[in-house]
Amino acid sequence: MAVGEANFDFHVVPGVRMASFPCGIKSDGVNDLVMFEFVEGSVTAAVFTKSLFAAAPVEVGRRHLKQTSPRYFVINSGNANAATGDEGIADSLTCCKSLSQLVGARPEEIIPFSTGVIGERLPVSRITDALHNLLPRLGENNWLEAARGIMTTDTRPKIVSRQKEILGKKITITGIAKGSGMIQPNMATMLSYIATDVSLSQHTLQGMLDQAVNKSFNRITVDSDTSTNDSCMLTATGVSGLCVDEDPESSVKFYELLEELMIELAKGLVRDAEGATKFVAVRVINGEEQKSCLAIAYVIANSPLVKTAIFASDANWGRIVMAIGKVEADIDISKLDIYIGDVRLMANGTRDPGYVESMGDEAMSTEEITITVDLKSGDCEETVWTSDLSHEYVRINAEYRT
Amino acid sequence: MAVGEANFDFHVVPGVRMASFPCGIKSDGVNDLVMFEFVEGSVTAAVFTKSLFAAAPVEVGRRHLKQTSPRYFVINSGNANAATGDEGIADSLTCCKSLSQLVGARPEEIIPFSTGVIGERLPVSRITDALHNLLPRLGENNWLEAARGIMTTDTRPKIVSRQKEILGKKITITGIAKGSGMIQPNMATMLSYIATDVSLSQHTLQGMLDQAVNKSFNRITVDSDTSTNDSCMLTATGVSGLCVDEDPESSVKFYELLEELMIELAKGLVRDAEGATKFVAVRVINGEEQKSCLAIAYVIANSPLVKTAIFASDANWGRIVMAIGKVEADIDISKLDIYIGDVRLMANGTRDPGYVESMGDEAMSTEEITITVDLKSGDCEETVWTSDLSHEYVRINAEYRT
Repeated sequence: MAVGEANFDFHVVPGVRMASFPCGIKSDGVNDLVMFEFVEGSVTAAVFTKSLFAAAPVEVGRRHLKQTSPRYFVINSGNANAATGDEGIADSLTCCKSLSQLVGARPEEIIPFSTGVIGERLPVSRITDALHNLLPRLGENNWLEAARGIMTTDTRPKIVSRQKEILGKKITITGIAKGSGMIQPNMATMLSYIATDVSLSQHTLQGMLDQAVNKSFNRITVDSDTSTNDSCMLTATGVSGLCVDEDPESSVKFYELLEELMIELAKGLVRDAEGATKFVAVRVINGEEQKSCLAIAYVIANSPLVKTAIFASDANWGRIVMAIGKVEADIDISKLDIYIGDVRLMANGTRDPGYVESMGDEAMSTEEITITVDLKSGDCEETVWTSDLSHEYVRINAEYRT
Repeated sequence: MAVGEANFDFHVVPGVRMASFPCGIKSDGVNDLVMFEFVEGSVTAAVFTKSLFAAAPVEVGRRHLKQTSPRYFVINSGNANAATGDEGIADSLTCCKSLSQLVGARPEEIIPFSTGVIGERLPVSRITDALHNLLPRLGENNWLEAARGIMTTDTRPKIVSRQKEILGKKITITGIAKGSGMIQPNMATMLSYIATDVSLSQHTLQGMLDQAVNKSFNRITVDSDTSTNDSCMLTATGVSGLCVDEDPESSVKFYELLEELMIELAKGLVRDAEGATKFVAVRVINGEEQKSCLAIAYVIANSPLVKTAIFASDANWGRIVMAIGKVEADIDISKLDIYIGDVRLMANGTRDPGYVESMGDEAMSTEEITITVDLKSGDCEETVWTSDLSHEYVRINAEYRT
């Protein structure tokens, strides 16, 4: 029941292979174990959850990344290996060790990831017993299969791919992501794996990933809840031969392509948000400072009353006003305009004299809605993407054991 | 569909009369206009919403309270007179003026209140035309009728009453409240009127109200949304002849009675929260500081994922862990214990070895649930009361135009 069409086309990324297999953590026989392999010399940047309860694989991943560049990712869905204490750490390490022996790598060259139920021990032997099935399945063409293998309550895989010619060389970026609830700033129940064939220093790559995460995954919210396992990985194989570091113009072009791709991936998560029937962009424009624009955008996007009104296609600007009222910021409300689509509902802090309800009904009737708040007091602007709050959200989250 | 039984018994408060009447703002012919009258010499304390978009009656009320002690309150339900700009202010003033002429008081001795739909002009003539019907209906016994007259999506009135002998004199406190959604710290879609017959200086009364609001109405949350119209009023008529100011022991006794009454009123709002099927206390104990205890209590109480799990009677402590993980505080998660009722689900940051799911199912099976988080690192403690997130919450808020 996702909002809008999805495109599942992608380009392979030279130097990256992947495979997936059903190891039996999920009961329905679907693929729940995924592996990535990166060519030697690949460089990886990472952004992890800020949760105090970061899951065991996140802890292990952070350690391993400090030691060396990863050659392999091993990802299971169905169990988050979170809030599992020292035993959880040991379980993640066992998975890494087991894979390292199979592929002839060091354990620290392997980064583990888990997503699913919190607080249950990871069924390690199911994973280690299944790992050997992944190796013969490794292939450059398995991106979509991998995107499916990391899903939990997602209704469809998320994949975005871009190619561009830079300095006469064709370069590729392809990324997948999962996550449809527990989605909030500072990363979400979200796993994302992005790879490119350009060459970059780890330092530059990490800087680009930090910035692009902030413009994409950190600008979406489904339910204001943040997960223990969020991870976004960006790997550069260098196989294209284009070294982005050495040319500022290539660097800008590459970054723009990356950010565009990551925003599309992030929007893909919101489109498939649990129970979503609407895709909503909340824009706050002409503010005095970035921070208060973002705070206003989030307070609207996270308000259960605004979200239920959107579910009902009700142009209930009173609830938008109520939400803005919660922000601790110095805002001149007598200047404030509110739009849904192109329809202005509120002008200068009160109902627009030209507004009639039928205009609001019309503006709310589409699946994709933009709410714009014009503060008319500066040049700053922020946009956040979210979904509505539907019966289906409650049903999914009352029935599913995260 | 409120949680638990309600008690509608009350004591009259000498010096306070009230009346209600259907003025036709609500379409169903129920009482939607309420008036309070206080004997001359009464003293009133007030706490209003912190919303940037404070409604017109709140603005007018603030002004009037600065000028004199109120003798009358006039309250309408069905229309919030919020986000109505200068016209809204004028509308509220017109209501005050009209009532002042009828009763022979000054306009500034009247405090207006409104609750209901945001962003619509107040139908002033319906109110002014109906005011004369209130006067012959004024009586000391009409507390419950008044509690009904201020309701919006509430399914039942909230009234709490206490009597106590202090220094040989019998004193009374009686209060009513409304509000069942848009309920959050810093007051809610909440109106509350409390009166007592003790005598107190305005300064002392205001201090007591501030403190008691913080322990009661500012410790509840339904949906993290805050309204534009929240008001809590406390009036002391002095008719009992007991002057609380003059005796420290009486002062303490009176305050304790007031706080107890206000906590019960606040809990009454949560019990009748929109779509509530559970009444939930979230206790955070043995913390290092009050602030982080409260932050943890709120982040659990406001998490849509925790609330849907409670609706499903699912002892999903993984979601509690996820919610705690969002708090920006310095917490040693390896010490953390989590209980539902008396059942410990998590010990020292991971699953309690003695815990089995049937214990959690049992603990979740009741209508009233206490979640306890033991930080084991200090002496601070905070409790917040909330409800679950049900299908009914979505239905009510998708259908009702606030």
